[in-house]
Amino acid sequence: MLNICLIGAGGVGTIAAYVLENSHRAQVTAVLRSNYTLAKEHGFDINSVDHGRITGWKPYRIVPSLSAAYTPDHIYDFIVITTKALPDLTASLIQDLTSSSSLITPQKTTIVLIQNGLDIEAPFTTAFPSNPILSSSSLIGSRLTSPTTIFHEDPDISKVGPHFHHLDTPLSKTTQLNAATLFVELYNTGLTPSHPTTGAECILVQDITASRWRKLLWNASFNPLCTLLRISVGELLSSPGRSTLLEPAMREVAAVATAAGFGDAVSEDVVQMMLRETSATSPFRPSMLVDLENGRMLELDMILGAVVRVAREERVDVPVLGWVFEALRVVQWGLVERSQGRRRV
Amino acid sequence: MLNICLIGAGGVGTIAAYVLENSHRAQVTAVLRSNYTLAKEHGFDINSVDHGRITGWKPYRIVPSLSAAYTPDHIYDFIVITTKALPDLTASLIQDLTSSSSLITPQKTTIVLIQNGLDIEAPFTTAFPSNPILSSSSLIGSRLTSPTTIFHEDPDISKVGPHFHHLDTPLSKTTQLNAATLFVELYNTGLTPSHPTTGAECILVQDITASRWRKLLWNASFNPLCTLLRISVGELLSSPGRSTLLEPAMREVAAVATAAGFGDAVSEDVVQMMLRETSATSPFRPSMLVDLENGRMLELDMILGAVVRVAREERVDVPVLGWVFEALRVVQWGLVERSQGRRRV
Repeated sequence: MLNICLIGAGGVGTIAAYVLENSHRAQVTAVLRSNYTLAKEHGFDINSVDHGRITGWKPYRIVPSLSAAYTPDHIYDFIVITTKALPDLTASLIQDLTSSSSLITPQKTTIVLIQNGLDIEAPFTTAFPSNPILSSSSLIGSRLTSPTTIFHEDPDISKVGPHFHHLDTPLSKTTQLNAATLFVELYNTGLTPSHPTTGAECILVQDITASRWRKLLWNASFNPLCTLLRISVGELLSSPGRSTLLEPAMREVAAVATAAGFGDAVSEDVVQMMLRETSATSPFRPSMLVDLENGRMLELDMILGAVVRVAREERVDVPVLGWVFEALRVVQWGLVERSQGRRRV
Repeated sequence: MLNICLIGAGGVGTIAAYVLENSHRAQVTAVLRSNYTLAKEHGFDINSVDHGRITGWKPYRIVPSLSAAYTPDHIYDFIVITTKALPDLTASLIQDLTSSSSLITPQKTTIVLIQNGLDIEAPFTTAFPSNPILSSSSLIGSRLTSPTTIFHEDPDISKVGPHFHHLDTPLSKTTQLNAATLFVELYNTGLTPSHPTTGAECILVQDITASRWRKLLWNASFNPLCTLLRISVGELLSSPGRSTLLEPAMREVAAVATAAGFGDAVSEDVVQMMLRETSATSPFRPSMLVDLENGRMLELDMILGAVVRVAREERVDVPVLGWVFEALRVVQWGLVERSQGRRRV
C-alpha cells in the first residue's frame, strides 16, 4: 500500500482523498483543521456526480495537525496539498513541513499540489530540492456545503504533470516523470468505476504550465470579474460587461501567456470555446465570489496577481486585468480589516 | 407671495421646500409620488443640522401628480426639480411638463434644477427655450430615513447660477440673471435663522458649470469607487485604493475639466483640499452606494458617464474613470434585471 498524507480536506481535497483510497492501492492520512472534530466523529457525507451518495465516509486516518500525521512507521509516498492557494498559507505550510520531523523524506516523498494559480510550485522546489513536485490543474466542481458535507457537481477532470526542478537537484527527469505517472495511474484507478460514464479523468501532461495558462483564460477573467461585480457567470455573459470587460480580459490573459511562450494553449479558438461552453443562463458563482460572500480570503494573488506580474515582466499591456486586480486588492484589504474587527461589515 | 412647485420631496427636496416656505415670501406646492399618502396625512418629521427638530411639517400644498399641481389661479414663479438625475426620469418629467397644461408659463416660470451631475440643463433648455433655467450644485447631506422622515446632517450649502440659453431665446441675459438673484435671495432668507451658525448658505455664481466640475472631482471619484468596492469613504482613503484608484481618478476628472476650459476650478490645490477634508475614519457611504444597497438606480450616467463623454470629446485619456464606468454599467444592468424579476438578488 502507498502512504499518502493529504492536507486540506475541503471540497477538492475530500474527493481526492476518496479517489486515492478507492484505488485500493493507497491509504490516506487526512490533516484537517477547522472540521477535524466533526469529521473524526461523523465522517463525510458526499454527494458526487462521479461516485454517487456516500454517508459517513472516513479516510484511513484523520489527524488534527501535521505533527500528528507523523508516525515512525510511516514513510509518505505522496504529500497531497489541496489547501487554497494563498501566499501566507503556503508560506506557513512550508515552514511547518520543513520543521516537523520527516513528513517529507528526501528523494522519496513526492509533493502534489492540487491548487489554483500560476507559479505555485516555486516555493516548494526551493524548500524541497530533492523531492519530485507534481502540479495539478483541476476542473472539479466540488464544494463543502457544511464542514463535513460535500456537493460535487462537475466531473473530476484534472491534468497532472511534473514541475521539473530548475535548481540543483539529485533527481533525474525520469524520476520526476515516473512520480507523475504513478500518481496519475493511482488516481485513474480510483476513478475507474465512474469513467467513462461521467468523463472523469486524470490526464498526465508534460507541460503543466501550459495547462495552467489555459485554465487561467477562464479563471483570471470570469472569476475576478464576477467577484468584483458580484454576479454569476451567466449574468456576466448576458450583461454589457461581456464585450467591455470579459472578452478583453480573456484576450489580455492570452496575450500574456503568448508572450510567456504558451501561445498554443490560449489560441483564439480556445477563447471562443470557453465563451461557448459557459452558458449565459448559468447561475454559477465562481470560487472567488463564493469566498467573498463568505468573508474568506480570495485566491487573488495566485490567480490574477500572478498573471499581472508576468505581464509586467513581459511588458504586455493588461489594462483590464490591471485595474480589476487593483480593485480586488482593495476588496481583499476590506476582508482583512473586517476579519480583524477594525471595520464594519 | 411667490408660487413654487417643487417636484421630488426626498432628502434634498423636502429641506428645499422647508427653506423656501421659511422665507415667508413663497408658498410651495410639493408633488410627491411614493410618499404622497403618508406625507399628506402626517407631514414630515425633520431632524436638521440647520433647522433643528420639526414634527409633522407640511408645505402649503401636497399633491400626487403634476396635473394635480395645476390650478387656474396659480401661475408658478418657480418649478424646482429635486428628483434624482436619471436620464429616463428626466425625459419622462419633461414630457409630462410639456404636455400638462400650463405648469410652466413661457417667459414667466423659472425652472430650478437642484440635481447632481453635468449637462443636466440641456434637455430643459431645449424643451423650454423661453424660460430661465437655474442650476444648483448642492452639498447638503440630507436623506430620507423613512418615507416622511428626514435626517439632515451637513449644512445646506449650495451654489446657484443661471444656465444661459445657447439656442434662440427671447430672454435677455439680465432676465436670466435676475431670476437667479431672486431665487438665491429667497433661499437665503429662508436660511437666515441658521446662518451663520452652521454655515448654511446659498451662493450666487456666474459660472455654475465650473462649480459642477469642482463637485465632480469628489462625486465622480469617491462616489463611484466606493460604490463599486462597496466601502465607505474612510475605508477607501485608508486602503491601497487611495493611491492606485482614487487619486488617479480625481486627477483624471481634473484633466477632463481642464480640457473643457474649467482648469481654475479643479487645480491640484482643490484636489488636495478634498482629500484632506474627507476623513480617513469617516463611515460615510456616498449616495450611489446607498442607492445600490437599496436596489435603486444609480445616478451613473449624469455623474460619471457625463465626465467620460466629455473626456472622449476632448480626447483626454481616462483609464480609471473609463473602467469604473463600464464596471458600474454592469452593476446597474444587474439592478434593472433584478427589479424586473429576471435574475436572483
